[in-house]
Amino acid sequence: QIDSARLWGSIHETAQFGATAKGGVRRLTLSSEDKQVRDWFRKACEDAGLEVHVDALGSIFGLRKGRDMSKPPVGIGSHLDTQPTGGKYDGILGTLGALEVIRTLNDAGIETEAPICVVNWTNEEGSRFAPAMMASAAYVGDFTTDDILSRKDAEGTTVGQALDSIGYRGDKPVGFQKLGCFVELHIEQGPILEAEGKTIGVVDSGQGVLWYDGKISGFESHAGSTPMLLRRDALATLSEIVLAMESIAKKHGPNAVGTIGEAVIANPSRNVIPGEIAFTMDCRSADGAIMDALDRDLRAAIADIAARRKVEVQIDLVWRKAPTHFDPKLIAAVENAAKTLGYSSRRITSGAGHDACNLNTVMPAAMVFVPCKDGISHNELEDATQGDCAAGTNVLMHTVLAIAGV
Amino acid sequence: QIDSARLWGSIHETAQFGATAKGGVRRLTLSSEDKQVRDWFRKACEDAGLEVHVDALGSIFGLRKGRDMSKPPVGIGSHLDTQPTGGKYDGILGTLGALEVIRTLNDAGIETEAPICVVNWTNEEGSRFAPAMMASAAYVGDFTTDDILSRKDAEGTTVGQALDSIGYRGDKPVGFQKLGCFVELHIEQGPILEAEGKTIGVVDSGQGVLWYDGKISGFESHAGSTPMLLRRDALATLSEIVLAMESIAKKHGPNAVGTIGEAVIANPSRNVIPGEIAFTMDCRSADGAIMDALDRDLRAAIADIAARRKVEVQIDLVWRKAPTHFDPKLIAAVENAAKTLGYSSRRITSGAGHDACNLNTVMPAAMVFVPCKDGISHNELEDATQGDCAAGTNVLMHTVLAIAGV
Ligand SMILES: NC(=O)NCCC(=O)O
Ligand SMILES: NC(=O)NCCC(=O)O
Repeated sequence: QIDSARLWGSIHETAQFGATAKGGVRRLTLSSEDKQVRDWFRKACEDAGLEVHVDALGSIFGLRKGRDMSKPPVGIGSHLDTQPTGGKYDGILGTLGALEVIRTLNDAGIETEAPICVVNWTNEEGSRFAPAMMASAAYVGDFTTDDILSRKDAEGTTVGQALDSIGYRGDKPVGFQKLGCFVELHIEQGPILEAEGKTIGVVDSGQGVLWYDGKISGFESHAGSTPMLLRRDALATLSEIVLAMESIAKKHGPNAVGTIGEAVIANPSRNVIPGEIAFTMDCRSADGAIMDALDRDLRAAIADIAARRKVEVQIDLVWRKAPTHFDPKLIAAVENAAKTLGYSSRRITSGAGHDACNLNTVMPAAMVFVPCKDGISHNELEDATQGDCAAGTNVLMHTVLAIAGV
Repeated sequence: QIDSARLWGSIHETAQFGATAKGGVRRLTLSSEDKQVRDWFRKACEDAGLEVHVDALGSIFGLRKGRDMSKPPVGIGSHLDTQPTGGKYDGILGTLGALEVIRTLNDAGIETEAPICVVNWTNEEGSRFAPAMMASAAYVGDFTTDDILSRKDAEGTTVGQALDSIGYRGDKPVGFQKLGCFVELHIEQGPILEAEGKTIGVVDSGQGVLWYDGKISGFESHAGSTPMLLRRDALATLSEIVLAMESIAKKHGPNAVGTIGEAVIANPSRNVIPGEIAFTMDCRSADGAIMDALDRDLRAAIADIAARRKVEVQIDLVWRKAPTHFDPKLIAAVENAAKTLGYSSRRITSGAGHDACNLNTVMPAAMVFVPCKDGISHNELEDATQGDCAAGTNVLMHTVLAIAGV
């Protein structure tokens, strides 16, 4: 059994780095707050006896030796960055839970056959830089390191500049640390476990993701003197797109969602009809065929709206992540650990994307979910209980022990 | 006849203050660019022999003596501030046209019976600070000077601070300069004169304006893991409001318009369902009963949308300007001047608001319109011909001479 109080203490101690007035955390990737939590985490890993290295994209790897160093390490961990209005648990539970597993094994004097590697992946959230799960995507070869280093945030700062500014451009090449498999603990970020009174979600699959950048070019004109019928209003165009996306997602539901999270009017003024809007779109489904249908329906709807309103709408697919099907043996190992420990569990699909989904494309991977309050995440009010966090960490530890061998 | 080349030269010389790459002007009220054009204008007024004073809200008054100083001056002028992406003519033609009238009278050695007062009103556009036509509204007593001085822009800077920062908080109380009447020259900002091949618009009325500040409070949550049916999406709510306003304006059309020009998502992120949006609304009609109907229909539609989507929508009416009916005698004077000079003309309603509309509530006022290209305004592509600008200025001069007496 892990030390529930120690885990809870770590979560709340690090929640000060970027703490918001509403009880959440604002810790955008590679920000000064992210540097604070990284420094804390690196030191905690070193204090736990891990050999710590940082790769060229800032991901932190802490290695615990195993008896048989020819075996590839069992990877565990998640991420410490948050949304602009994020919570205390998303990613953090999985990273500090991994640290807690190491501390518990140390305290108990348990040596494993295979080594264990704790990982904090850079930019899982994808708010500041796209795509989400950026560093693990580069790790598995979906993008080159140079490509990722050149990605820019809204202010034009590149990933490379941001890494340098907080001193986390590491000296190890991406992929330097081989892993045999990866297990990630996370809050569910949805309402199912809580509603069904289950403690552990055995994650067997994850939704695929489509991310688009969009730009609407209408025509600025005077709000008072331009007749309704002569307008080429970028905001009215966006409004139709938002509602079209909503109904397309519902039509393909319940296994589909669609969101427009960002929309910025250029040079806004009360008495000017909006002429230009930049926006983003996020569509998801656990079913690849539905993802294709969402893309097709959305493009058709947008083309129709643009033609009718005589505006230009440009849509660029900037990221496509296929649905995830986790490794059956690792899924069984998670399920077995939950059963052994006496926790209620159910199989579940992840609505959110996770670094484990990227790793699963090149190695066996699996995930452990615990409930979160009212299914709320990506919100400062995100909440989870100490008991559930500890239960998830126990399942993580027992899964690791089963895979690594004692 | 005024000096067409000199007028055209003034317009293009001052267009350098805030010139944009697309050929427009960005000269927000009380900005450093506004200071540049004010300095230029003040000097030009002084060089033309006017006695120049600045009032507590930064409006500039340049007085040309008349033979009978017991008569109240004939006011002429407009504004030199622009929209964020504004043009070279909106307001500027009327202000520099007024200056050109003075220069022409000086050159011809013409003395008038009543004095003439050239005015540059502060913040006509209403982009940086609400309401539009702020200084002339205070002049006629719609707002107190202190109220206006405390209005804030998006950065939290007050009108008072902005005035001080460019040295244009004048020593004269608002209203110090009595005027007997006011005549404003302006581009039409609509397509009618050009379409009908008329040179002069004799403005007999102006639309009323309703300005609202709005705020939507939904609930931020995860774009991937929140089912469509559980969302309280602020952007989807806004989208319905935008389309409802559009159809309400159309329903009451053609004599009604409605625009949402500003909308800002709080803490936007690609994978977060928008939880909070601040926005503005602008509704207009030349008919007071239609204005009331727009307000009623809009509030009802918004209440219905908010209830259906389980979000809060707060709507504050921040400005209501009743429709304008200009002074019949002054209208006739403008019409007569156009006829005498041989310009084609028609009576017209102003779609935009103007300082003359405010002044008309306490003194006789009227306006002269000239065509602008494709009716485009509040856009960097705004355009007008030298010939039309000169024609309008000639009509302004002859109207002034008829009122002031030679
Ligand atoms: N777990 C999580 O919230 N990931 C962020 C990336 C996404 O799924 O949008
Ligand atoms: N003339 C003009 O564009 N005025 C700005 C105020 C408004 O009508 O919106």
